[in-house]
Amino acid sequence: MAKQDKLYIIKIGGNVIDNSRNLHEFLKDFHDLEGFKILVHGGGKVATELGKDLGVEPKMIDGRRITDVETLRIVTMVYAGLINKNIVAQLQFRGCNAIGLTGADGNLIRAQKRPVKEIDYGFVGDLHETSVASHMLSKILEDGLIPVFSAITHDGEGQLLNTNADTIASAIAVAMSKHYETSLIYCFEKKGVLKDVDDDDSVVREIPSGDFEQLKSDGIVAGGMIPKLHNAFEAIKSGVSEVFIGKADELDQLSKQTFGTRLIN
Amino acid sequence: MAKQDKLYIIKIGGNVIDNSRNLHEFLKDFHDLEGFKILVHGGGKVATELGKDLGVEPKMIDGRRITDVETLRIVTMVYAGLINKNIVAQLQFRGCNAIGLTGADGNLIRAQKRPVKEIDYGFVGDLHETSVASHMLSKILEDGLIPVFSAITHDGEGQLLNTNADTIASAIAVAMSKHYETSLIYCFEKKGVLKDVDDDDSVVREIPSGDFEQLKSDGIVAGGMIPKLHNAFEAIKSGVSEVFIGKADELDQLSKQTFGTRLIN
Repeated sequence: MAKQDKLYIIKIGGNVIDNSRNLHEFLKDFHDLEGFKILVHGGGKVATELGKDLGVEPKMIDGRRITDVETLRIVTMVYAGLINKNIVAQLQFRGCNAIGLTGADGNLIRAQKRPVKEIDYGFVGDLHETSVASHMLSKILEDGLIPVFSAITHDGEGQLLNTNADTIASAIAVAMSKHYETSLIYCFEKKGVLKDVDDDDSVVREIPSGDFEQLKSDGIVAGGMIPKLHNAFEAIKSGVSEVFIGKADELDQLSKQTFGTRLIN
Repeated sequence: MAKQDKLYIIKIGGNVIDNSRNLHEFLKDFHDLEGFKILVHGGGKVATELGKDLGVEPKMIDGRRITDVETLRIVTMVYAGLINKNIVAQLQFRGCNAIGLTGADGNLIRAQKRPVKEIDYGFVGDLHETSVASHMLSKILEDGLIPVFSAITHDGEGQLLNTNADTIASAIAVAMSKHYETSLIYCFEKKGVLKDVDDDDSVVREIPSGDFEQLKSDGIVAGGMIPKLHNAFEAIKSGVSEVFIGKADELDQLSKQTFGTRLIN
């Protein structure tokens, strides 16, 4: 490992996982991406559907999803078992030596159960600066393996914890920036930050951190994009070289510098 | 890695996994065992129960369990997700740097879907001589990680396969005997091979391969023990140094040479 080596951390969510054609297309592009890489995946609808089949109602408090014992059981089965291992098997088929992981495996991501304040979120993990065991994760990469993380971590005391996949991707990117030149890539349903919300092709190609305030004032960055970009610039401040936000099915554009919106310092 | 380094491959089944007190006790003893080690676990009743809850009836043909698409889905969730990750989290709590794996991860165990003859077993994997990627598995051990395998493999073409845990343990032990001095340990419900089937303490301490035929003639080895010992001696012929058969809760006796029945060449 050398600081000049490039490492991509790519996060995909339900819109990729729930559609097998999207997923296969994405995994092909992921395979083609050169350099060190790590995949982080969320859960999608499968966990909700399994919950329904088992008669476990989603628990919500003030619109926030709660991970009770039954829900943790379900997400552990679906994220760490079903989805993770099928992605690994698919990547293996493509010649990508993937290894499916949770934060418990190799003690790679140790979280803290979210403290109970107004809401008890249940078995949800929050990450902190030393959560990611970057040295062990580097060893795994140097072994020639491609880590595929599901959004499950642990607290080091035997408890698994449901953890936001965006947060996991960001924490990995920041921690690994000590060892590699890291690029963090968030795949979501749009092609990037759009100048005109009604024009899918009006992607803003690059946003330097200094432009963030102006874009907010202009209303180009609004709603759910504000926290997304805020977190992205925080990651950049903490050592990540660049963050991309774009559409999973355009990942092949990354090498041509025409993938989504690039956020830089 | 050096050939003189000792490696233990320990297989546990439903009688350990289904009882949380047994499991915790076992994991404590597993943690205390010195040297390189690998755990292989079966499934237990959880998969059957989840199947019932989901209205998936176990498919049997001529008394043999069939792994159809739905059953594969369930065992992938339960073995590779729920059971595997909880064991890993428990081991991490004890300071054991466990990593949960299937055969798909790191392409560590590649199986072949069982050919359809009289019975179509469905998505069941058979292992062959080159199934285990012993070099990669050695790297993982040398990284300081303790592999914990669930009984799921893959065919290298994107298909996960349900695979017998005893067979996985044996294939790992044989393949790793190129790199380590391997001991294969099968935990089951009895203390070992018993001289007197009604006396739990009449354990035969050691069986050299040359005594196997005589013990069969004498009826001391009978019924289900015959294939078990047959397979154990096959593993020894293929390079494994010793095979133990004993009770999970007596694993702490291993270092004192008073664990179960030891099979040697």
